Amino acid sequence: MVYGRGSFNQLDEIVAPQRKDGMPMVFLIDHFFEDTPLFNRVPLRNNDKIIYADVSYEPKTTYVDAIAQELKEEFGSISGVIGIGGGSTLDLAKAVSLMMNNPGSSADYQGWDLVKFPGVYKAGVPTLSGTGAEVSRTTVLTGPSRKLGMNSDFTPFNQIILDPELTSNAPVNQRFYTGMDCYIHCIESLEGTFLNEFSKSYGEKALELCQYVFLQKEIWDEECDDKLMMASFAGGMSIAYSQVGVAHAVSYGLSYLLGVKHGIGNCIVMNQLEDFYPAGVAEFKKMVAKNKIEIPGGICKDLSEEKFDVMINVSLGMKPLWENALGKDWEKIMTREKLRALYGRL
Amino acid sequence: MVYGRGSFNQLDEIVAPQRKDGMPMVFLIDHFFEDTPLFNRVPLRNNDKIIYADVSYEPKTTYVDAIAQELKEEFGSISGVIGIGGGSTLDLAKAVSLMMNNPGSSADYQGWDLVKFPGVYKAGVPTLSGTGAEVSRTTVLTGPSRKLGMNSDFTPFNQIILDPELTSNAPVNQRFYTGMDCYIHCIESLEGTFLNEFSKSYGEKALELCQYVFLQKEIWDEECDDKLMMASFAGGMSIAYSQVGVAHAVSYGLSYLLGVKHGIGNCIVMNQLEDFYPAGVAEFKKMVAKNKIEIPGGICKDLSEEKFDVMINVSLGMKPLWENALGKDWEKIMTREKLRALYGRL
Repeated sequence: MVYGRGSFNQLDEIVAPQRKDGMPMVFLIDHFFEDTPLFNRVPLRNNDKIIYADVSYEPKTTYVDAIAQELKEEFGSISGVIGIGGGSTLDLAKAVSLMMNNPGSSADYQGWDLVKFPGVYKAGVPTLSGTGAEVSRTTVLTGPSRKLGMNSDFTPFNQIILDPELTSNAPVNQRFYTGMDCYIHCIESLEGTFLNEFSKSYGEKALELCQYVFLQKEIWDEECDDKLMMASFAGGMSIAYSQVGVAHAVSYGLSYLLGVKHGIGNCIVMNQLEDFYPAGVAEFKKMVAKNKIEIPGGICKDLSEEKFDVMINVSLGMKPLWENALGKDWEKIMTREKLRALYGRL
Repeated sequence: MVYGRGSFNQLDEIVAPQRKDGMPMVFLIDHFFEDTPLFNRVPLRNNDKIIYADVSYEPKTTYVDAIAQELKEEFGSISGVIGIGGGSTLDLAKAVSLMMNNPGSSADYQGWDLVKFPGVYKAGVPTLSGTGAEVSRTTVLTGPSRKLGMNSDFTPFNQIILDPELTSNAPVNQRFYTGMDCYIHCIESLEGTFLNEFSKSYGEKALELCQYVFLQKEIWDEECDDKLMMASFAGGMSIAYSQVGVAHAVSYGLSYLLGVKHGIGNCIVMNQLEDFYPAGVAEFKKMVAKNKIEIPGGICKDLSEEKFDVMINVSLGMKPLWENALGKDWEKIMTREKLRALYGRL
């Protein structure tokens, strides 16, 4: 990994030894950056290709499969995939890398340790801080029957470049929602049952950095971008030996059914989790108030019982998350009725 | 990297994919563990070889060259080197790995970015916490003309296994001296001029963990081993974008001339550095007192001026360390006379 302001300029040098004869490097870039100055800084060589990733929606398995298929048809194989963007773009890049070398559909690999072969070389360059997608061993995808990641030892990037300069133009709301993904990771990890000293020390550091930028600082400046990028990294590392918890498990149902994006979905759920994380939720609400953010409410009010059932099924399918949050007997604690009531309040 | 109590048991599975036909895995083990139960847990297969590393002295370039030469003569090449031990053993393992694939003597590569080719696969399993050798991009060696590391992008381990159980039998003094290597890293990194947010967040966490185990805790228990192992890792990560400082620069002279081991050497020097790190030295002295450790003194009292000159030359050769500690104009601040006086006080 490389960290530092301006480190994006090292990308050309970093990918050079990974180039294979005749095979392009594919730059998968968040469409937010189309026609921005960042384009001119992408180190294109030979038959390299830029793909602007449409991240209006969370990444779908069908989208991953389509990109991988097109690349195979056009080039046979490629030298690597460089993801430049927020969590969705990074997850897409990881998934496309894997699908260049694994048969079938990415939907076949949603779960834990199902991926069979390493992907092509992949590098991640986050332009938003908070998701931890830059370090995680998953790539969260919405598939035909679930929203679930391709969790595997082959999933993490070979290389990450953390350049806080790239996050400076993020819209304030988006920056907050994504930053809260990190904050919520920390609470879920530190309050979880899977915690060990590795996860704890990373989680505590990430939490402290989030508290600094979202509560202590009076204005947002370069220091905040620097620190939030480290928080995101540390929060992601914390999850490596731990798991997320209730907010993520519930928010996955929202994303699956309603297409609610991950960051804001987590915030909508966290806002209602006093019973599970009382101190964390109180602090979260302070952060919301101090940063003058509005968290949407009432998003489930017109849904049919059938649709509640869909969300409940998706959510209860996230067994490791529930077990981390509530212990081995989680099914006795989080009943369908309780989860129905919680969704009803969102 | 893998972290956790008992994770040493994963070593067999972890190295399996790295084995190459007919080429042994070489386990380089601290001689402290000869005839201990750890021996039976080393996952030997086929023509694998155990070498007990003599770490009575700090690793020498001649020792590295001799091990690499013997392995080449016996096997041609090897699948990899697994270092199991304290910082000296880990540094030896890294250096031997590099010298399996680089021509000449390891002394030719003492410096920054001189190593030409990647080494063979290498994994590190620390049995003492504090040096950061498990993550550093150097391998500190005493050569014919200097004590200096092979600093390069090829130097870090491919894999590390952090199992705090392995540190539980360390002698109390040794544990303290080595732990202080981490504490001193943190002070030198956090008070240095090279600091960025990456180094800062790791350094702060490592510092906090050291303070907890050496000042807050009343007895040494498993939690201390767990936390000190994370502190060592985080302290090493902190140095990745920073540098050590005055204590290390001065202590290298002691090691070169007198063979003083790194951990205790740093403590001897730190004990006299009030002028450079006033708060850090005060806290260091509290740790020494609380842990009932004696720091030797008067070790330079019978040395000739010629020998002082040797130490001064070795120390002033560590330019990046001095620049980190004192800024670009360090040569005006740390004159030969001042350094002579400091050595005289040790």
